[in-house]
Amino acid sequence: MNNIESLVQTPEPPVEEGAAPRSADWENPRVAAILAAAAKCFARKGFSATTLAEIGKELGLRKSIVHYYFASKAALIHEVQSFSYHKYLNRVKDAVAGNGTNRASRALTALWDAIQSNRTLAELNIEVWSAARRDEELKRRASALQREAEQLIFEGVQGDLRSMASDSGRREALSTLILAVLNGLSISQYLDNDETRARAAYDTFLSLLQPELKDLPSA
Amino acid sequence: MNNIESLVQTPEPPVEEGAAPRSADWENPRVAAILAAAAKCFARKGFSATTLAEIGKELGLRKSIVHYYFASKAALIHEVQSFSYHKYLNRVKDAVAGNGTNRASRALTALWDAIQSNRTLAELNIEVWSAARRDEELKRRASALQREAEQLIFEGVQGDLRSMASDSGRREALSTLILAVLNGLSISQYLDNDETRARAAYDTFLSLLQPELKDLPSA
Repeated sequence: MNNIESLVQTPEPPVEEGAAPRSADWENPRVAAILAAAAKCFARKGFSATTLAEIGKELGLRKSIVHYYFASKAALIHEVQSFSYHKYLNRVKDAVAGNGTNRASRALTALWDAIQSNRTLAELNIEVWSAARRDEELKRRASALQREAEQLIFEGVQGDLRSMASDSGRREALSTLILAVLNGLSISQYLDNDETRARAAYDTFLSLLQPELKDLPSA
Repeated sequence: MNNIESLVQTPEPPVEEGAAPRSADWENPRVAAILAAAAKCFARKGFSATTLAEIGKELGLRKSIVHYYFASKAALIHEVQSFSYHKYLNRVKDAVAGNGTNRASRALTALWDAIQSNRTLAELNIEVWSAARRDEELKRRASALQREAEQLIFEGVQGDLRSMASDSGRREALSTLILAVLNGLSISQYLDNDETRARAAYDTFLSLLQPELKDLPSA
């Protein structure tokens, strides 16, 4: 089907001049569906081997519709990481919501569980780190997302710090370290296909953190 | 220059029938030079954007000579990671050689220093993890190298374990964790261009390890 045909057969969606960038409207169910399908395809085959047509096919959508929301594959690549990462961080935020006890421990468990239940994000991250070496905008975004995740971890563990970790430099270093452990174990698990081994290493890490944090579960 | 010309002008190297695979002969200075140049190019531009001709150019060698040692770019990609990783592990082995004190602490410092002084390896690793998703042989090799590194860490810290870490399951988990921290902080440093931040996180990690290991330097 050529472009003219597909435009004729696809009256929706209307073109809104001067509207905010369509691709950033995650509240739009179709945008969200395209981003989720793109994450899956990119994680599976990588950025360069995936076409907009394939992403559309996952949803039974024509390429022209994908193209309507995302002007180029580059635009989709830039947005898909933010979208997937924010979904991940929101799950973690939900898990630590409220002022109950064990906030730090819940945050650390939620970070692990959320990445385990979403292997697409782990594989997408690897693709992003690699592509970021040749795409400055992607690198800038990836770096900003890391900072955001570290900030969330920082806030998640803040209330439960023992005196030892009460200076903010150490708290920042702990946040960087926690995110690095999650990223590093993602890679290890991906290469080994061995969740048990990665899980045992994470449990060991939590036990090492015990002197720093109140209320961590015993390993 | 076409292939026939370059063959005529390049009498060396002789073809040895039935010899061991030439590409694996790291003792051959030319093989080692090609692998080192390939690591640099691949880390900079990625596997797919790098040609054998470019790698040769780094050394002032014709493409046909690179081709003589490595039948294909795939063969070079498979070998370059093993080569670079073993150079890294050998530096770490040298640093912990002998039966002096502080073996674990020296091993942990050497692992960090060696990856800091060789950012090519850190970037090459990211490229390998990404490409491994589409190349089973590369993934198998990357996984084997991780195990080898973990084993080296395992042996490096073995003599200095306090009773708490003396069971081998926990030691194995610690080794997996240490390698994950190195990989994770590599990524964090790469995205942030911030060595100080990554270093502070590593120092914090070493301080958390203190109850497990004897003789670690205070952070």
